[in-house]
Amino acid sequence: MLSDIEIAQQAKMKKIKDVAAGVGLGEDDIELYGNYMAKFSDSALERLQEKEDGKLILVTAINPTAAGEGKTTVTIGLGQGLCRLGKNAVVTLREPSLGPCFGVKGGAAGGGYAQVVPMDKLNLHFTGDFHAITSANNLLCAMLDNHLQQGNTLRIDPKRIVIKRCLDMNDRALRNITIGMGARTDGVVREDHFIITVASEVMAILCLAEDLPDLKRRLSRMIVAYTYDNEPVTAEDLQCVGAMALLLKDAIRPNLIQTLENTPAIVHGGPFANIAHGCNSIRATRTALKLGDYAITEAGFGADLGAEKFLDIKCRKGHLKPDCIVLVATVRALKYNGGVKKEDLSNENMEALEKGIVNLGKHIENLKKYNVPVVVTLNKFISDTDDELDFVKKYCEGYGCSMTVSEVWEKGGEGGIALAEEVLKTLETKKADFKPLYDDDMPIKDKIRYIAENIYGAKNIVLSKSAENSIKKIEEMGFGKFPICMAKTQYSLSDDPTLLGRPQDFVLNIREVYVSAGAGFVVALTGSIMTMPGLPKHPAAESITVDDNGIISGLF
Amino acid sequence: MLSDIEIAQQAKMKKIKDVAAGVGLGEDDIELYGNYMAKFSDSALERLQEKEDGKLILVTAINPTAAGEGKTTVTIGLGQGLCRLGKNAVVTLREPSLGPCFGVKGGAAGGGYAQVVPMDKLNLHFTGDFHAITSANNLLCAMLDNHLQQGNTLRIDPKRIVIKRCLDMNDRALRNITIGMGARTDGVVREDHFIITVASEVMAILCLAEDLPDLKRRLSRMIVAYTYDNEPVTAEDLQCVGAMALLLKDAIRPNLIQTLENTPAIVHGGPFANIAHGCNSIRATRTALKLGDYAITEAGFGADLGAEKFLDIKCRKGHLKPDCIVLVATVRALKYNGGVKKEDLSNENMEALEKGIVNLGKHIENLKKYNVPVVVTLNKFISDTDDELDFVKKYCEGYGCSMTVSEVWEKGGEGGIALAEEVLKTLETKKADFKPLYDDDMPIKDKIRYIAENIYGAKNIVLSKSAENSIKKIEEMGFGKFPICMAKTQYSLSDDPTLLGRPQDFVLNIREVYVSAGAGFVVALTGSIMTMPGLPKHPAAESITVDDNGIISGLF
Repeated sequence: MLSDIEIAQQAKMKKIKDVAAGVGLGEDDIELYGNYMAKFSDSALERLQEKEDGKLILVTAINPTAAGEGKTTVTIGLGQGLCRLGKNAVVTLREPSLGPCFGVKGGAAGGGYAQVVPMDKLNLHFTGDFHAITSANNLLCAMLDNHLQQGNTLRIDPKRIVIKRCLDMNDRALRNITIGMGARTDGVVREDHFIITVASEVMAILCLAEDLPDLKRRLSRMIVAYTYDNEPVTAEDLQCVGAMALLLKDAIRPNLIQTLENTPAIVHGGPFANIAHGCNSIRATRTALKLGDYAITEAGFGADLGAEKFLDIKCRKGHLKPDCIVLVATVRALKYNGGVKKEDLSNENMEALEKGIVNLGKHIENLKKYNVPVVVTLNKFISDTDDELDFVKKYCEGYGCSMTVSEVWEKGGEGGIALAEEVLKTLETKKADFKPLYDDDMPIKDKIRYIAENIYGAKNIVLSKSAENSIKKIEEMGFGKFPICMAKTQYSLSDDPTLLGRPQDFVLNIREVYVSAGAGFVVALTGSIMTMPGLPKHPAAESITVDDNGIISGLF
Repeated sequence: MLSDIEIAQQAKMKKIKDVAAGVGLGEDDIELYGNYMAKFSDSALERLQEKEDGKLILVTAINPTAAGEGKTTVTIGLGQGLCRLGKNAVVTLREPSLGPCFGVKGGAAGGGYAQVVPMDKLNLHFTGDFHAITSANNLLCAMLDNHLQQGNTLRIDPKRIVIKRCLDMNDRALRNITIGMGARTDGVVREDHFIITVASEVMAILCLAEDLPDLKRRLSRMIVAYTYDNEPVTAEDLQCVGAMALLLKDAIRPNLIQTLENTPAIVHGGPFANIAHGCNSIRATRTALKLGDYAITEAGFGADLGAEKFLDIKCRKGHLKPDCIVLVATVRALKYNGGVKKEDLSNENMEALEKGIVNLGKHIENLKKYNVPVVVTLNKFISDTDDELDFVKKYCEGYGCSMTVSEVWEKGGEGGIALAEEVLKTLETKKADFKPLYDDDMPIKDKIRYIAENIYGAKNIVLSKSAENSIKKIEEMGFGKFPICMAKTQYSLSDDPTLLGRPQDFVLNIREVYVSAGAGFVVALTGSIMTMPGLPKHPAAESITVDDNGIISGLF
């Protein structure tokens, strides 16, 4: 069995200019980053606005196990499958973060014979977008601390600074730090925190910005701190917006690569779906809609996080209307949700499957609330038995949903044809009439409760005193109409990662609430969700290497 | 008068593949980063080894004022001038750091009509090399802190950790920090420090590595900490070398851009010369020597720092033999060294010039110790008077050196022809017989003293107790034969930035000494030199912006 990186190394990539030519783009429409990666030019992005939109297909999943359920793999494989059927499909994904790449999860370029390539470049620095975001965020922080050092004319309260430094790294030791120690010239002492770049507001802004002017408007609205009088201080107040925009000038243009079968893949932006809004950029999705008759995208982690935020934040902000939702499950994850230990997932266990499949049921119910047709697909593993597959199929039919097996990991586009046909049939026969879950006008606390009760299945929410105060302040500042970006564990529908299946009668704990005024949403942190991951006992980095001839191994 | 960025925006750039073709490179020899930047391919770098070397010309300077003396500008202008004379010249520079770009200094792509382009991309993220270095360094730090967290089987003493995290940013508040605070899962509490990326050992290693295998060897030798038994712990011990090498895989390949007059410019690596070894990569210089009959390079800040380290570290390690040294001075900087205030530098002041020119004299004396012919050039400003120019000319002739006026800022290559002719004459008539200043075998303390006395003009050195101890330990560990990388203020020949001209009878204070076992040198920190700069009261970032059409201003 070949590893993902070995399969990727054997890929017969087309030159990216030829991939671009295949969807009608000329050489001036893209800027090359080597032979196999490119960024769209501003003029191309502008010109494409004239074109009609294709169909928008969202791929999401049930609550995942630690390994993920192959949502990206299915997204890519579905694109490859549609192309095998002679359709003009474009895949559009988020960029991977270096943090998980060197931590637990490995890369994020799909798997097996459904990958985007060059997977090594994508998983590493790619075209530098995340580095640009890290630089822009940290310049803002350096400017803020320099302002404190140089006399603090804005009267920033060092105890009320809300912007945090970031790194694209899993580095738990930077979660809580004290900075500014040493001599008088070494800055002002204060508590600070690093978050992972994908959790930063700059990342969210990049993903939600319409264009460069909109990016600048959003950056200028970012609240970095409050004064001693509790008035907000923005990036604009620190005179940092121009420099940040300049650092992000290239990063806001979407990137073009390809699948193993040369399907165009637009990969751009990458907020985590547990701690951020979890979807690739609006510009990337729009571009895919213009270039493809079918644009297939994904939203991170389970549908309770990724899809909810895709639908309630990204689609709302970007006026996007999904035509079909593909919900990915695996027999393994369903059994895991039924209480089976990781090491026993390869054994048939109908009892556990029956117990765990309620998780799938809840996600189907949830997605139907958005008035978009749902297609379930099982991402097949060799260990899955016919009885298990049959059981899932019947369960879905009980919900009025079809269930199709995907074999894209093993067979690439060929293994995605059945799903592609099912999606095409659904698009033809079922009409989507997308509407978001809640109205802008609902008070913030009600929105949080509404999501908790209707999507997570909570019986109630409990807010900390500070969360209550923050909501009051946020509504006073005039941000009450923003949608909510929930930060929650991906392993459970609840805020407790150990509650698998379909938890009932639980209370959702809201620890902290803050406004991302530039991104345009209100973040609610639930349970003990972290905005800076840690490395495990044996980080993936220990096994990753490049030999003396430049051949990479251990990246998966 | 146009600003640098305006001149750069008007440049008639050739496509970089055509610049490459001009020096015999095919399309497979480079990897494009857009139309105007490229990285050399591994195969091209290997194939070029067969070719004969051109002449190596080093451009260095007197002790600079805060604005710099136009050393980069002269380097580029000399390349342009040689090309005007029909010669095959290649310029090779270090990459700019974002820190000074947003701090005081602005960009570092030359100035006026002697610039390398695209200057905006070069001054910002360029091809991502510095971001890759930042990531590799910080992954190592995260792996180390994770090792402490996960049980510390290597028995690392948290009080003896020597690796520091880094950012490519001027951020004084990160100089001295406490990390690992919070809960038990949030890491081990310890003191930590951020340095600017250009001061990191990973940067030095990238600049000194021969190729990928050598890079890996050097990374594996990096000492990150000492155990409770005072034994060194390396990056190899942390099993981090493979992942770091992978992060640096593309970054170790030199970059190709061009001057405003389409001269090829190989730009790669960028350690600061005050706190690091201060030259571009050995691979870049070697590549320039293979591609050009004349390779013109520079070393940062004054000759006491940049040239000394270029000659004693880079040339020693890389077996490079410079054929000619161009020493850049300005009438303004000489007057500044003679005690004139910055705001009065535009007025003729023969007395101050006479007082300050001893700085130039000392640098000429120093460079002659290396047995390489020296050519002095005055980088001309509009305010310079004929009397002032005459005076400098005669002074140089007293040292047996020619003095040529450069007008490259104002006139580009045309303004560099006189200097180019002088350099060609020198190469024809004067034979270089380069030898480094000191022998490998000298004990570390003697090497430091030798540099202090012979280059800086100190009467003695004084070492802190901890510096003395470190030297003993370093020699015990077997690193006694390494050359010295002095970290010292650039504004004075001494370790006191206020001692201008040619200070006498001063004592050089060695605060701290440590070994960079991967880079292969011993660092001596003098005076109060900082490895993390701060931002000024009004950072350049406040004036830098990009308008809604993508046009950049304020970057200079």
